[in-house]
Amino acid sequence: MRPFTDSEPVFELRTDPTSGRKVLIAEGRAARPNDFVSATSILAPSHQPADCPFCRGNESQTPHELACARDSHGNWQVRVVPNKYPVVGPDAPEVGVCENPLAIAETPLGVHEVIIESPLHVRDWLDLSVEQVAEVLGMFVGRLEFALEQPRIESALIFKNVGQGAGASLEHVHSQLVGLPFVPTLLEAELAIASRHRAMQGSCLFCDLLREELRHRQRLVCENEDFVAFCAFAGRQPYETWVLPRRHSPLFTGVSRQEIGSLASVLQQVLHRLSEIVSPLAYNLVLHTAPPRDERSEAFHWHWELIPRTASLAGLEWGTGVFINSVSPERAANILQGIKT
Amino acid sequence: MRPFTDSEPVFELRTDPTSGRKVLIAEGRAARPNDFVSATSILAPSHQPADCPFCRGNESQTPHELACARDSHGNWQVRVVPNKYPVVGPDAPEVGVCENPLAIAETPLGVHEVIIESPLHVRDWLDLSVEQVAEVLGMFVGRLEFALEQPRIESALIFKNVGQGAGASLEHVHSQLVGLPFVPTLLEAELAIASRHRAMQGSCLFCDLLREELRHRQRLVCENEDFVAFCAFAGRQPYETWVLPRRHSPLFTGVSRQEIGSLASVLQQVLHRLSEIVSPLAYNLVLHTAPPRDERSEAFHWHWELIPRTASLAGLEWGTGVFINSVSPERAANILQGIKT
Repeated sequence: MRPFTDSEPVFELRTDPTSGRKVLIAEGRAARPNDFVSATSILAPSHQPADCPFCRGNESQTPHELACARDSHGNWQVRVVPNKYPVVGPDAPEVGVCENPLAIAETPLGVHEVIIESPLHVRDWLDLSVEQVAEVLGMFVGRLEFALEQPRIESALIFKNVGQGAGASLEHVHSQLVGLPFVPTLLEAELAIASRHRAMQGSCLFCDLLREELRHRQRLVCENEDFVAFCAFAGRQPYETWVLPRRHSPLFTGVSRQEIGSLASVLQQVLHRLSEIVSPLAYNLVLHTAPPRDERSEAFHWHWELIPRTASLAGLEWGTGVFINSVSPERAANILQGIKT
Repeated sequence: MRPFTDSEPVFELRTDPTSGRKVLIAEGRAARPNDFVSATSILAPSHQPADCPFCRGNESQTPHELACARDSHGNWQVRVVPNKYPVVGPDAPEVGVCENPLAIAETPLGVHEVIIESPLHVRDWLDLSVEQVAEVLGMFVGRLEFALEQPRIESALIFKNVGQGAGASLEHVHSQLVGLPFVPTLLEAELAIASRHRAMQGSCLFCDLLREELRHRQRLVCENEDFVAFCAFAGRQPYETWVLPRRHSPLFTGVSRQEIGSLASVLQQVLHRLSEIVSPLAYNLVLHTAPPRDERSEAFHWHWELIPRTASLAGLEWGTGVFINSVSPERAANILQGIKT
């Protein structure tokens, strides 16, 4: 890596240390001409759509409630329901064996839940208080514990899609939990690399990464006593930011009460900074947590990956799995550090 | 796999036989409500922008010409130039070794070319004659041969991004060639699986796949004497269609003169059918061809993968590498077969 200077465009082929993913950092591309009218993000009206199924009063429009957190008056603040349009399900119809050995289809067993994060029609965690975000994170812990106890569930993740550009279909603030009967490709790659690192170095890859990021500080976004947020060394999109706990811990379900509050605060800080740069901000936020029954679990270190969606994927990404990022993580961090909070 | 019927929604976890990629086919999701105004594709005006760098007469706006095909009057029909905003380059500045062992950055050595496919300001291969598309394909062969002869280039691909939704920035009909100093993730997975299949079965995975597709016919889109187009068994997006040569051949550069004509015709047929279903059609078309110096090459079978871009990727895809497809390949093929040509 060449030392970062403000003025010189970064042009590098980088390898993400946690997944092996390759990213071409090509800052020269930011100057490309564009024939297309700039895609102004199309936002739904900010008032409450009368028929929003996630708003207080419309509870009958969702499937049966699985869990909820109530305030002292008994009103729900966070509410969990099965996803009405699931990608996996506990009662998915059995898929028979096919005579074609190259056509492997299985029953999509799993758990797919929606976590409705406020009774009010707001869009983002920035519209909630830090205590409300902490309550949501606490609910994540409970639902993950439940999902990972199910007999055939091997891994689970929680993710948020915010904004149409991030694949959201409803704007009311919410997230999703998916429990899967296998360890998905990306987590598998991360586990393999982390366990190899642990076997060879005797240390946690993510702890080592965190130490390096804190030493160089050129990709740091913000930090507090429990968490550090930094732009990923090989971010797939401009401004991709990861939030790691300082304490080594494979499973998000091992988070402490105090850490939940700290995490809510750091995540809100990151979102605030990003929303000052990218407006309107569309993003995916994804939890990476170890599959508890996997023997390599102990080498893992849970964290959140936040991917602002500013650039489309094109043929190179779809055809190779290699990403192109036109804003270097060092430049992105430099800009994000400068935002007043 | 359950037998496909028109009326019953398909709900399956599928594994792509060529890459191991997992896809959740969840047809029930097509009925999801949507808060956001439907994203009408924003198209640039169909007349020629005065300053389009790819139009005849504006040749001085592109870098120096690398190759061209001319008609009998000496006018260029297909023109190849270096990409002005490259992601890799032959003269990329050397990236030094970093003291942080977790920050692996390399010089992005490579080849990045643009193939301008017509002197006229048209948008798609459907606006060209089959002979013109064949001429473009012939140019691909020449440029691939050149790229793969470069000393440090290990693999190369050609891709088209058509429409803003597919990541295109210029609408003038064109494609790109990228030669890379490594074998990218997806091709690596395909090579590993194909060579394992060959070692165990003694046959080509893709030849076997083609035979199965031709036997069951439920995913076929169209075919001619040299090529077969079918919806991929585990397509990442609705209507994902692959075009395979019947003849086993690892490298696209081994295509015959006659096959080039047949391929142009099949690709145009596929595009015609898709454009009747998805309008306006935005898509990525990507060539998969073996890295010639890789010892597993002989097990590979070149082909084109066409991915219409109708759905956004969201947190699940970014966080796991697992895709969600709300139109089963059997339903997609059924619809595409019904289009008059």
